[in-house]
Amino acid sequence: MCHFCMKELVLLRHGESQWNAENRFTGWADVPLSVRGRRESELAARRLRESGFVCGAACVSVLMRAVHTLNIVLAGLDCAWVPVHKDWRLNEKHYGALQGRNKHDVELEVGPELVQRWRRAYDCPPPPLPAGDERLPMQDPRYAAVPPHLLPSTESLRDTQRRVRACWEEQLRPRLYASGSLLVVAHGNSLRALVMLLRGLSPAGVEQLEIPTASPLRFVYDDDMNLLP
Amino acid sequence: MCHFCMKELVLLRHGESQWNAENRFTGWADVPLSVRGRRESELAARRLRESGFVCGAACVSVLMRAVHTLNIVLAGLDCAWVPVHKDWRLNEKHYGALQGRNKHDVELEVGPELVQRWRRAYDCPPPPLPAGDERLPMQDPRYAAVPPHLLPSTESLRDTQRRVRACWEEQLRPRLYASGSLLVVAHGNSLRALVMLLRGLSPAGVEQLEIPTASPLRFVYDDDMNLLP
Repeated sequence: MCHFCMKELVLLRHGESQWNAENRFTGWADVPLSVRGRRESELAARRLRESGFVCGAACVSVLMRAVHTLNIVLAGLDCAWVPVHKDWRLNEKHYGALQGRNKHDVELEVGPELVQRWRRAYDCPPPPLPAGDERLPMQDPRYAAVPPHLLPSTESLRDTQRRVRACWEEQLRPRLYASGSLLVVAHGNSLRALVMLLRGLSPAGVEQLEIPTASPLRFVYDDDMNLLP
Repeated sequence: MCHFCMKELVLLRHGESQWNAENRFTGWADVPLSVRGRRESELAARRLRESGFVCGAACVSVLMRAVHTLNIVLAGLDCAWVPVHKDWRLNEKHYGALQGRNKHDVELEVGPELVQRWRRAYDCPPPPLPAGDERLPMQDPRYAAVPPHLLPSTESLRDTQRRVRACWEEQLRPRLYASGSLLVVAHGNSLRALVMLLRGLSPAGVEQLEIPTASPLRFVYDDDMNLLP
């Protein structure tokens, strides 16, 4: 196989957000990076640069903690010019009525086992946002072009994976093929869903998978888009 | 006319770059913002926010001083999520062999009148970069998809306007119409060329036009895309 025809995909979870630092469920709430998260993003850029990564295109969710991480990384890689596609389907798993709540408080209320299942299991959505809640995504102009029946009020990882899979097929895969090297900046659970898909993990396998903030994950494809080991 | 159907176009020149501060010709050289330029960009965001501007989409050149200005403004407007189209045709006028040189040194060499014509006249390109110069754009991966005959080794404002006009017709105008409010971040001369086009200025008129850094220029269109006075 021709070495020059290989395609490189780098997945990156955003740097620490202010709610990560405060131990609160975030989901689709649009929370900025913490100071530590900005520093982590600069370090991620340095690691990518030192590894020889040359970015040809980028995709990112529509949440500011991911977009700002991407901006910091592209600045650090000296490639502010690359085309960036923003896609709501890369958003974090929607955490329903848990969004904004302190994880420890919720554990005290319902027990740590249920919280762990809401956070890591494949098929266990948290309680939804109630009808009329002002945080429901159909009221946010950034989702105005999305068919309303696709917009969640809560999600299991299976739900998240359905939209991540569509995004992979329609956007990420073609952009990886065309550019030769694609950077995707997204979230803990949307990236777990994507890695599950790319690596063919089982629901039990994905429960063990944790994605740390601002640590690049590298996938290499051959020219026929077969994932190399 | 329906007030809600109006379209708002905001043009913004990037904040001060390091070479603006050093009084050097920049053109297509990819130079970062100065500290002052970053602060100017934050102030531009605040002014836009206070004026009630709600950004629906953005376009920007492929030069980092413009992209970084845009990133700062979108962060300040709390709309990191808006789609961004990057287009080489919004780049600054190519300054040919003058790029990197101190403006005062060049004035001492050729006289201030000729320098003023290179900088402001409609039809007076500076001397081109020589063949084989490593700064020629065809050697830069960001222009790999551009037909080589379109890539300049110098430009007059007329040359710049030709590509800015194509960008307006193909990208800016449709995105303004679709989004209802478009932010364009570009450069002193690419914006002079665009304003000349939008306002129907003559070559003599455009010689008098100066665009200050990081000061939003607002254009309002009706729903039939007629520019309002």
